[in-house]
Amino acid sequence: MTTPANTAGTDPLRSGPDPAGPDPAVTVHAQAVRARVAASRLATLTRTRKDAALHAMADALEKQSPEVLAANAADLAAAREAGTSAALLDRLALDERRVAAMADALRDMAALPDPVGEVVRGSTLANGLRLQQIRGPFGVVGMIYEARPNVTVDAAGICLKSGNAVLLRGSSSAARSNAALVEVLRGALADTGLPADAVQLVDASDRDSARQLMRARGLVDVLIPRGGASLIRSVVEESTVPVIETGVGNCHIYVDAAADLDMASRIVLNAKTQRPSVCNAAETLLVHAAVADAFLPRILAELTGAGVTVHGDPRVCAVRADDARVVPATEEDYATEYLSLDIAVKVVDSLEDAISHIGRYGTGHSEAIVTDSAAAAAEFTARVDAAAVLVNASTRFVDGGEFGFGAEIGISTQKLHARGPMALPELTSTKFVVTGAGHVR
Amino acid sequence: MTTPANTAGTDPLRSGPDPAGPDPAVTVHAQAVRARVAASRLATLTRTRKDAALHAMADALEKQSPEVLAANAADLAAAREAGTSAALLDRLALDERRVAAMADALRDMAALPDPVGEVVRGSTLANGLRLQQIRGPFGVVGMIYEARPNVTVDAAGICLKSGNAVLLRGSSSAARSNAALVEVLRGALADTGLPADAVQLVDASDRDSARQLMRARGLVDVLIPRGGASLIRSVVEESTVPVIETGVGNCHIYVDAAADLDMASRIVLNAKTQRPSVCNAAETLLVHAAVADAFLPRILAELTGAGVTVHGDPRVCAVRADDARVVPATEEDYATEYLSLDIAVKVVDSLEDAISHIGRYGTGHSEAIVTDSAAAAAEFTARVDAAAVLVNASTRFVDGGEFGFGAEIGISTQKLHARGPMALPELTSTKFVVTGAGHVR
Repeated sequence: MTTPANTAGTDPLRSGPDPAGPDPAVTVHAQAVRARVAASRLATLTRTRKDAALHAMADALEKQSPEVLAANAADLAAAREAGTSAALLDRLALDERRVAAMADALRDMAALPDPVGEVVRGSTLANGLRLQQIRGPFGVVGMIYEARPNVTVDAAGICLKSGNAVLLRGSSSAARSNAALVEVLRGALADTGLPADAVQLVDASDRDSARQLMRARGLVDVLIPRGGASLIRSVVEESTVPVIETGVGNCHIYVDAAADLDMASRIVLNAKTQRPSVCNAAETLLVHAAVADAFLPRILAELTGAGVTVHGDPRVCAVRADDARVVPATEEDYATEYLSLDIAVKVVDSLEDAISHIGRYGTGHSEAIVTDSAAAAAEFTARVDAAAVLVNASTRFVDGGEFGFGAEIGISTQKLHARGPMALPELTSTKFVVTGAGHVR
Repeated sequence: MTTPANTAGTDPLRSGPDPAGPDPAVTVHAQAVRARVAASRLATLTRTRKDAALHAMADALEKQSPEVLAANAADLAAAREAGTSAALLDRLALDERRVAAMADALRDMAALPDPVGEVVRGSTLANGLRLQQIRGPFGVVGMIYEARPNVTVDAAGICLKSGNAVLLRGSSSAARSNAALVEVLRGALADTGLPADAVQLVDASDRDSARQLMRARGLVDVLIPRGGASLIRSVVEESTVPVIETGVGNCHIYVDAAADLDMASRIVLNAKTQRPSVCNAAETLLVHAAVADAFLPRILAELTGAGVTVHGDPRVCAVRADDARVVPATEEDYATEYLSLDIAVKVVDSLEDAISHIGRYGTGHSEAIVTDSAAAAAEFTARVDAAAVLVNASTRFVDGGEFGFGAEIGISTQKLHARGPMALPELTSTKFVVTGAGHVR
């Protein structure tokens, strides 16, 4: 699934009271040491044993859903008291159906192939040495994330399947829910003979615990922040553990001079309105000047009709001067990941200008062109630097599930290690195994 | 080739006078901006044009070798005056043969396949969307490295071939040599119509220039430090640009109870003495207690006979109590990457103890077992966590050239992105290209 981005109200780096949290005497360092011990056992587990544990985790979640829902109710009550918005309350809320969906996600992971042990490449060298590059787990993965409790279960499952131990640092607003979920998951691990310390919750009530996680170099192999831009920026700045950036998506749709305008309209509406709160939703529409007169009146009517506020450049605003839902765009609008029913709309004079605009304001997530011109499509896909570049398709397709990769832990917007949806293989490293018969140089 | 590790005397983070260096008014930031512009051109160059430039660079190096050698002579004179050791002077020194070797390395790179444009995977999804994951350059690569001037040429060539611009920050002791080399390379780039700013030298006389490179997040895509442990540690600590760690190799050879002792002796001697200054040389020998009586007397005689100082545990020292070349090992010895004719030798009571010792002191580079037992080999290769694990072969084989990958920019000892020898594909990222026919969700 796609990561709904975080907003200020659920910043997981904010501390708060955590009545149901872990023992504050347990340091992140001590947890990381225990995770390493667990990881060394996970690394050599067979797929059969990992899948059995995933099924046990799923069954336990369904069986113990009353405890999970009670903890969640307490989180929700505290959040309501703190004046949390309805949208954030909805993100935090669990019910039987959502718990069942978490359990089903774990069962789906069990059905995916095991990435561990895959021979990525192999050959026999001229001197007879046999060379194999083999996939294996990272070891210990750290996650720092926002309110949604399902991330706790998804991350635990995907890390277990890929042979990694995980340290989970959610937000304090979901602390009781996360604690209840992790207790269920650890119980299921122990019941199937696996180390419970493969899944550990880091104390979200301690502001410093996230910093400790970021500085646990040598104990934690990779840190994956999942949330809004400010969370990810602070992790990238502070962490000495290698970080994989995820999820900030200031995604563009460029309607080319050679676009099919009916198709363009369908794609723009889908990418903006089908689920505006996620990172692969469109945030800016660029329209080639040659089709602006034909396209702008209809797309502006359709967008505003769907409840979208348009932040337009002067040429756009002039089309619907009397519409209160069409307002002037500022420089900041072009840089903003709205995650809401807002869109920046700008007329560009060329494909070149569209590519430049995306180069300047894009976050390297997902960028789309609508065009019937093969040359324009080739130029756009070659030169736009992003995790995913789409031709005549909605940005909403950039997702591990949609790509057929199965469960994903986020969408990487960096170039190192993984770019785009991060599924099971992206949670592994490799090792060269070299076999000789007394070979020396 | 393998990275000879750095030593204190050539720390590239030390500043010094740099009479032949770049204009101090040119900031690293300005250089990085120019590198980005160059990178956007390099990204879409055909292999033909890149290979032509590599050949032009090689030819120019040979033609202009007098200028290069004159600059190198000045570096050498200054280094001699500063009391630099003979070993470091040798590393810094160039002659006609070494310049020709640099030129040949560039020609070899031209013969390698172009990683850019490789379709890593592709499929048509159930809904008809066509998905391709395509290899492309990072953009701008930063290198921080030690004295050897050939790294300047190697890095420039490998980055060009993989479509990346490069910012080179060598050591001040090689500043004149590096400046002369880069001038030649930039001239050849310009002569073949490519942007000279694809290869730029960062002012090594400015202590702060390395820091600026480390903080150029958003302009520099990846930073590769190549040198000793302290250099790499400081880059990892200070950099906000993603780093790929290279080259620190505290490599072990474990001689198992089931080892062929003749083979073990050949491998130990080769791994320790064939080229002791490089990262894949062996630094510690672990001997199973069951073969200690049979193996220690001969291997200690052979090692000391080859001029190696043995730092032994009590059981080892007892074997040659009167030999001045066998001295007691301290805790620090086990953690030391000697890069010299020194080796720590320890008797272990089990395979388990050997794996534990390596887990505690190893740097995740190259670890070898000598054994005739398939079970012991399987256990060792599965459980030892390193870039390369070898069975019955010298650690000296862990090298991009030996593995058949061609030119390498270093040996990664981290788990993210690249692990082991980093050749051309490891200097690229990927992009998903998604092609539809108006697809919406």
